[in-house]
Amino acid sequence: MHEMLAELVGALPAGVVATEPELLEKYRRDRAADPNAGTPLAAVRAETTEQVQAAVRWAARHRVPVVARGAGTGLSGGATAVDGGIVLSLERMRSVHVDPVTRVAVAQPGALNVEVKAAAATHGLWYPPDPSSFEICSIGGNVATNAGGLCCVKYGVTTDYVLGLEVVLADGAAVRLGGARLKDVAGLSLTKLFVGSEGSLGIVTEATLRLLPAQPPTCTLVATFPTMAAATAAILAITAQLRPAMLELMDRTSINAVEDLFRMGLDRSAAALVVARTDAQHQSGADELRVMVEACEKAGATEVVATDDPDEGEAFVAARRAVITALEPLGTLLLEDVGVALPRLPELVAGVEAIAAARDVTIAMVAHAGDGNTHPLIVVDPTDAEMARRADLAFGEIMALALRLDGTITGEHGVGRLKLPWLSDQLGPDVLDLSWRVKNALDPLNILNPGAALPPSNTPQPRHYP
Amino acid sequence: MHEMLAELVGALPAGVVATEPELLEKYRRDRAADPNAGTPLAAVRAETTEQVQAAVRWAARHRVPVVARGAGTGLSGGATAVDGGIVLSLERMRSVHVDPVTRVAVAQPGALNVEVKAAAATHGLWYPPDPSSFEICSIGGNVATNAGGLCCVKYGVTTDYVLGLEVVLADGAAVRLGGARLKDVAGLSLTKLFVGSEGSLGIVTEATLRLLPAQPPTCTLVATFPTMAAATAAILAITAQLRPAMLELMDRTSINAVEDLFRMGLDRSAAALVVARTDAQHQSGADELRVMVEACEKAGATEVVATDDPDEGEAFVAARRAVITALEPLGTLLLEDVGVALPRLPELVAGVEAIAAARDVTIAMVAHAGDGNTHPLIVVDPTDAEMARRADLAFGEIMALALRLDGTITGEHGVGRLKLPWLSDQLGPDVLDLSWRVKNALDPLNILNPGAALPPSNTPQPRHYP
Repeated sequence: MHEMLAELVGALPAGVVATEPELLEKYRRDRAADPNAGTPLAAVRAETTEQVQAAVRWAARHRVPVVARGAGTGLSGGATAVDGGIVLSLERMRSVHVDPVTRVAVAQPGALNVEVKAAAATHGLWYPPDPSSFEICSIGGNVATNAGGLCCVKYGVTTDYVLGLEVVLADGAAVRLGGARLKDVAGLSLTKLFVGSEGSLGIVTEATLRLLPAQPPTCTLVATFPTMAAATAAILAITAQLRPAMLELMDRTSINAVEDLFRMGLDRSAAALVVARTDAQHQSGADELRVMVEACEKAGATEVVATDDPDEGEAFVAARRAVITALEPLGTLLLEDVGVALPRLPELVAGVEAIAAARDVTIAMVAHAGDGNTHPLIVVDPTDAEMARRADLAFGEIMALALRLDGTITGEHGVGRLKLPWLSDQLGPDVLDLSWRVKNALDPLNILNPGAALPPSNTPQPRHYP
Repeated sequence: MHEMLAELVGALPAGVVATEPELLEKYRRDRAADPNAGTPLAAVRAETTEQVQAAVRWAARHRVPVVARGAGTGLSGGATAVDGGIVLSLERMRSVHVDPVTRVAVAQPGALNVEVKAAAATHGLWYPPDPSSFEICSIGGNVATNAGGLCCVKYGVTTDYVLGLEVVLADGAAVRLGGARLKDVAGLSLTKLFVGSEGSLGIVTEATLRLLPAQPPTCTLVATFPTMAAATAAILAITAQLRPAMLELMDRTSINAVEDLFRMGLDRSAAALVVARTDAQHQSGADELRVMVEACEKAGATEVVATDDPDEGEAFVAARRAVITALEPLGTLLLEDVGVALPRLPELVAGVEAIAAARDVTIAMVAHAGDGNTHPLIVVDPTDAEMARRADLAFGEIMALALRLDGTITGEHGVGRLKLPWLSDQLGPDVLDLSWRVKNALDPLNILNPGAALPPSNTPQPRHYP
C-alpha cells in the first residue's frame, strides 16, 4: 500500500496529496456527518483538471474508490469518505470567469455559489440557483446534486442553468460536453446526465452556467398563521393565481429556533410563517403582492406584513435560510428533503405532523412550499438512544409517506448515502436496472463514489484497502 | 419474413399495423425528404403504451430496426425509415391533460405542440417552446429533438420544460422517469438523457411538461437594415442590455420569399429585417421597447416600427415563421441549423455569405438571432446537378465554419441522418465513445433508429430484411 500511495504522491505536485491523519479527518464527512464515514487513504486537493485526471487514472489502475468533494456542505452524505478510498477535493479549483455578452459564467467546481453570483453581479447579471447554503456551498456540489433553493419556484434548479461541463471520466479521460450555447442538440444530452449524478459517473472540473439579467427589485411578504393547514391553504391559493419569486414556509419550532438566534421579533405563538416574494416589475409587482396578501388574509392569517425595503425583506429571508443552523443547538438533526406535487402539500405536512406525534419526536418543518419541496427536520437528543431509534423510524416513515403521495425522497439534497435505502422504493426495479446500465457503462470498475447515489447491484465492487 | 410480420400483426389490434405499399410510402420520410430513405416492412400506428411495447418486443426478438415517428415534420431526417425496419408512429397517441394546480401538462407523444399550448391556455397557462412548425409538429418529436423555437432566447428549450417521461426501452420495458415535481433529484437524471436522443435510446410514450402562467401582452418591433452586418450589430446591442422575448433575423432572400407569399408590404430592398419582441410588463415593457428601438436606430436601421397590437405583431412573427415554406417554391432546400455563442454571430453570418459567393449558390439566412441559432437555407435547382454538387459542398462548409467558431452543427433540429457526417468533428472521439457506451448500454442490439443521431461505431448491427 505504501508503494501505491507513493505512486500517487509522485504523480502530483507537492502539497496536493495529503495523508496526515489529522488532515484526513477533515475530509471524512460532509455536513450530513455520517457516523459510518470511512477513513480515506489520502485527500487529493487538485489544482487543475490534469491533476484530477492523474488522480483518477491512478485510482482506476489500482481500483481505489474516489469520492469527489466540493465545499463539504452536502446534507445527504454524498461526499462521505470510503475506507481505503481517496477523497478528491476540488476546493482549490475556484476560478470564475464571466462573459457578459454571451451571458455565461465559466466556473471551476470549488467556486462557491456566492462567488458566481458576485462575479455575475459585477456585470449586472444574475445566477439564480440559491441553496440556503449559497454562501458556503460550491458550484461543483450544486451541479453534483442538481441543487435547488428558494428561487426555484419561479427560476428552476441548477440543471436549468448548466449549458456545458468539463468532466473527468472514470478512466481519467477529460471530456467537454455542451458549451456556451443556449441551443445545442448535437449528440446525446450527456451534459444533463452528469448533473445530479453525485460524483458517481464522473468528476465535474468546470461548468458553463447560463446567467440572467439582474433580478428586478423584490417585495417580500411575511404572514403568520394559527395553523399549518391555514398556511398551506394560503400557499395553494397563491400558486393557483401566480408564480411568486419565493414561497417559503416555517412551522412553530422553526420560528422559535430562529427567534432564539436572531431576536428579530417573530411571533413565537404563531403555528406557521409564510415568506413570499414577488419580483414582477412596476404595476405587476403591486398586483402580485395584493393577490398574495389577500390569499393569506382569506386563509386566516393573523398578521400580514409586506415590505419593498430590500434590507428588511432580506432579513426575513435570511431568517428562513438560517433554520437548519438555528436548530442545530437543539440536538442532532435528521434532515429530510421530501417533495410532492403541489396539491399534495397539505397532506404531506399533515402526515409529517402525525408521524411526529406517533413517534413522539420533534420534527421541525421548513419548506420551499411553492414547489412542494419540504425539509422536515427531526431533532434528536444524541444522549437518548431510545429517541434516536424512534427518530430513525420517523425518518423512514416520512420518505414512505412522500412516496405514497407520488412524491420524491429528495428534492434537492441528493440521495447520497443517507437516503439510499429508500431509493429503490421510489425508482422501482426497471429504472434501477436502467440506472445501473448507465453507471456500468461509464464507471465499469465502480470506483466513483461507490455506495452512494445508487443502491448496490450486481456490479463489480472496487477493492477496499484497510 | 411473412411469418415474422404475421406475428407482429397478430400481436396488435386490427388496423394498427399497416403493410400496404401505398400507406408505407407516407411513413418513409420526414420533412427532410431524405432521398436515401428506406422502405419499412410495416408501420405500427400504436394507440397505447402497451402496443408500443408489443411492437418493440417483437422488434427486439427479430432484431428489426425501429424508427419512431411523431408528426413527421423533422428537418434532419431523424424519422427516415430504414429498409427492413418498422416505423413506429405515435400519431394516434394524442391526448393532453392539464393539471392547473400542479401546473403541468401530461401529453402523449402524438399531441401537437399547438394542442398542448391550447390545452394550457384554457387554464390561463402557457407552454412556451415554439418551433416555427408548432402548429403541425408533435410533442414527441419536440422531446426527441429537444426542439427550440423563437421564445428560447428568453424562455429556454424543450428540455427545460420536461419534468417527467414514460419511455419504452429497447427491450420493450416501459419505465416512468421523473414526474410532476419541479424538484426531484432521486437517482440519475435519466429524464433529461432521453430528451434530444432522437429515438435512439427509447421511445417516449408520455411527457409531463411544466407550464408557466400565460405570457404577458407583447410588443413587437420590426426594423429593416441596409446590411446584414448592421442588423447583427443591432442584435448584439440589444442582447447586451436586455433579454427580449424574441429576436429574429431575416435576410433579403427570406424577406422577398415571404413577401411573394403574403404581400404584406415588407421592404423588398432591405438587406435584413429584425423582428424583436418584449413581454416585460407595464413600464418595463416600454423601457425594453425603447432600448430596442434605439439599438436598431443607432446600428443604422432604415425603418423601425413597433406595435402593441397583438394581431399586427403576430402577422410579422407569422411571416418570420413561414420562411421555410415561402422558400420551398424556389427549389429544393438544404436546411442548416448551425449555432454559435452570441458574440460570434456576425462572423457566422458573414462567413455564410462568403460561402454562398464562393460556391455560387443562393443561401437564404433566417435566424433565431438572439440565441445565436441560425438557419442558412441553401436553395437548389433540383434539375441542375452541378448546382446540387456545389450546394452539398456549401452545406458541409457551413457546418465546418460553425465548428471553427466553437459552435454547433445543430441548435434545435437534431442530427438525424443529414448532419451525421459532421457530428464526429463537433464531439470528438472521447465524447463519441462516451455516447456509444450509453447507447450500447440502453440499446445493445442497436435496433432503435440505427444510422441516425450517432455515427457508426463498432456496435452490433441489426439484421436488415430486404
